[in-house]
Amino acid sequence: MAILTRLLERAPQRLPGSPGYEEAARACLDEMRGIGLRAWTESAAVSRWVRGAGESAASAVFLGRRAADRLVLRAAALGLSEPTPAAGLEAPVVEARSFEELASLGDRVRGAIVFFNHPMDRTRLDTFSAYGEAAAFRTRGASEAARLGAVAVLVRSLTLRLDEAPHAGVVTYDPALPRIPAAAVATLDAEALSARLAAAPGSRVRLRLDCRNEPPGEAPIVVGQWDGTERPEEVIILAGHLDAWDLSPGAHDDGAGCAQAMEAMRILKALGLRPKRSLRVVLFPDEEYGAGAGKIYAASPRRRGEKILAAMESDRGGFLPLGFGLGSDAAFDRLKVWEPVLRACGIQWVRPGGGGSDVGPLAEQGVVTMGFIPDNQRYFDHHHSALDVLAAVHPRELELGAIVEAVMAYVLAQEGI
Amino acid sequence: MAILTRLLERAPQRLPGSPGYEEAARACLDEMRGIGLRAWTESAAVSRWVRGAGESAASAVFLGRRAADRLVLRAAALGLSEPTPAAGLEAPVVEARSFEELASLGDRVRGAIVFFNHPMDRTRLDTFSAYGEAAAFRTRGASEAARLGAVAVLVRSLTLRLDEAPHAGVVTYDPALPRIPAAAVATLDAEALSARLAAAPGSRVRLRLDCRNEPPGEAPIVVGQWDGTERPEEVIILAGHLDAWDLSPGAHDDGAGCAQAMEAMRILKALGLRPKRSLRVVLFPDEEYGAGAGKIYAASPRRRGEKILAAMESDRGGFLPLGFGLGSDAAFDRLKVWEPVLRACGIQWVRPGGGGSDVGPLAEQGVVTMGFIPDNQRYFDHHHSALDVLAAVHPRELELGAIVEAVMAYVLAQEGI
Repeated sequence: MAILTRLLERAPQRLPGSPGYEEAARACLDEMRGIGLRAWTESAAVSRWVRGAGESAASAVFLGRRAADRLVLRAAALGLSEPTPAAGLEAPVVEARSFEELASLGDRVRGAIVFFNHPMDRTRLDTFSAYGEAAAFRTRGASEAARLGAVAVLVRSLTLRLDEAPHAGVVTYDPALPRIPAAAVATLDAEALSARLAAAPGSRVRLRLDCRNEPPGEAPIVVGQWDGTERPEEVIILAGHLDAWDLSPGAHDDGAGCAQAMEAMRILKALGLRPKRSLRVVLFPDEEYGAGAGKIYAASPRRRGEKILAAMESDRGGFLPLGFGLGSDAAFDRLKVWEPVLRACGIQWVRPGGGGSDVGPLAEQGVVTMGFIPDNQRYFDHHHSALDVLAAVHPRELELGAIVEAVMAYVLAQEGI
Repeated sequence: MAILTRLLERAPQRLPGSPGYEEAARACLDEMRGIGLRAWTESAAVSRWVRGAGESAASAVFLGRRAADRLVLRAAALGLSEPTPAAGLEAPVVEARSFEELASLGDRVRGAIVFFNHPMDRTRLDTFSAYGEAAAFRTRGASEAARLGAVAVLVRSLTLRLDEAPHAGVVTYDPALPRIPAAAVATLDAEALSARLAAAPGSRVRLRLDCRNEPPGEAPIVVGQWDGTERPEEVIILAGHLDAWDLSPGAHDDGAGCAQAMEAMRILKALGLRPKRSLRVVLFPDEEYGAGAGKIYAASPRRRGEKILAAMESDRGGFLPLGFGLGSDAAFDRLKVWEPVLRACGIQWVRPGGGGSDVGPLAEQGVVTMGFIPDNQRYFDHHHSALDVLAAVHPRELELGAIVEAVMAYVLAQEGI
């Protein structure tokens, strides 16, 4: 908890390529050196985007027919969104709960703001499954709407709760289509907007987003290594992503994963253990924009002389540890034998299937990737919103994650894979 | 979540035998009938105890040597504690972290207030194990101190956090020893008290508790039954305890367990299912005082004509479901086959070993007892304190518990055991 607390205090803003991210990288280098790791950075090209200083509670306003219908929508530009014209734009709103419904709207979409109001499916046990399904409207919605002539999109926030906070996240533009502005709307306001639209179809929304995409830049991948005593050339990676959305300090996403990787090293050092193989913390700079740095890291010439055996990633929040998902079936057979050891520190299972956005590209090189999988029932309550703060992290849950990462890392360092 | 919300709104105070408990019983009868259960009550003798109206933030004050040393301790009388004299008492404080340390204090205990400052062991993965170990000072501490001549005890609250809230719970007096007053002290104040005592040994505390033990009374065990279609005489029990400590509405302990048992019935009704055997919700009135009503229920003549097959209890809070612990090895072999079904709704395991305070006495009659076991990392944050409120319950976690109870109940109703 101490490492996460220090990181969030020192670098609460960590958009890729931003000054805040640079400070976070320095904070982690200091942390790693304090633990006794050799620490360095490797540079990666990253997209850069800035939320407008003028974005406020009045960026999106439902106008309705009469003054009394006016409703300020709590909204936030999606990451990498284009801005509206400086004066804002105003257009009728059409609501769609699916891409099929969007298609059925036909000509009504032209010149309109499309409001994607697809709730996450709360009947699914796995909230990531519900997220994956609903996220299509956030990522692809703008281009699908632009294809039909829409001028902007509003997207219902991706959370299972009804709350007042817009939950951001990335929008992905189809290069062949106009790049129209896109914003997330808090779920409570999505419900209210839907009701008012039903009562007054064709009502207008005024939207003003002054975010901007800047020229691509560079951002450091932050690395800290503990050289093995017997086979230092063989490396086990513990990964997280140091970038975070700007609406909060990103305590769970993914401050927790970064802190756990470093904390796991601290624990093993404090126990006086001597890993035979090298343990390496790697913190990536642009998972939220699509994890381009993960590809850059895997493809770097620096990887040529290295023998990376395994790479585990923690990017599902600092919640109660449940299991590990392994990216390779062969590794599953090999690691299954360690289940009792992991069980003793609270892990319920080791399963095939898993990895992580940032370590994924390493799998293509034969590296065994694995995802640390905590409980996810509360994850999307906070995700990508102003609610993802330190107070939302339970110290025991966070620390148990660091402990199981430490155990898994040490098993791999001593036994290989 | 709706059932729990209604219960806590209507009956936030549920000490055994109190008017608040009576209201809770009526609320649950209404709830059960609304679900479509046959509902009734069975009476049980219970102890009755009332916290004093005068108990306040100034009930326990560390006096120190100078006025500046004065420290108001956030404290609360333990349940079933005797009061102090009406004017309060004042005595030097001696600190003990263990019963061994208490014994070593010898004559210094006579006439003193013993301050048991034994923290829960945060290195244990299972917080109930840490609780069980540390709870000895709360339950037995007063009598152990009285044996050496102490006039009262202060007990460090049983929580893994440092907080400002006294966490209450029952004190158990040895009938052969003087019944001295006992109070819990918030962990932050326990730390402060320990530091001030170290700086000024022999300092005094003024304690005033106006709680009182009243003559034993009667309280209803609340029962709701859904008669089976084929073997109505065979019964599966879903249990919780309706009583709660008075410092909060007892949302997790055990409002959650009561609500889950009723919600499980509601779910099965809503699905249009027709259980072959009878399902029965039983809500007990005095778990916190030692679960005497569980013994009364098991021994009641009404049980003679019944064939209770199994009794499951939820009394570990409304947290993420992890497993079921079974009180009988034979039942384990029988129920193990249903693990895949339970897994589909989030259960990680079914294990031998388990039950519950209230259903325990039924095990002696051959009933298969089982405990619903959710995650316990956050349980003691709230337990027995003013922090055990509805806002501390996560709707998805609570509802998942109801779902797995419904599945387990339905499997037992259809397949027997």
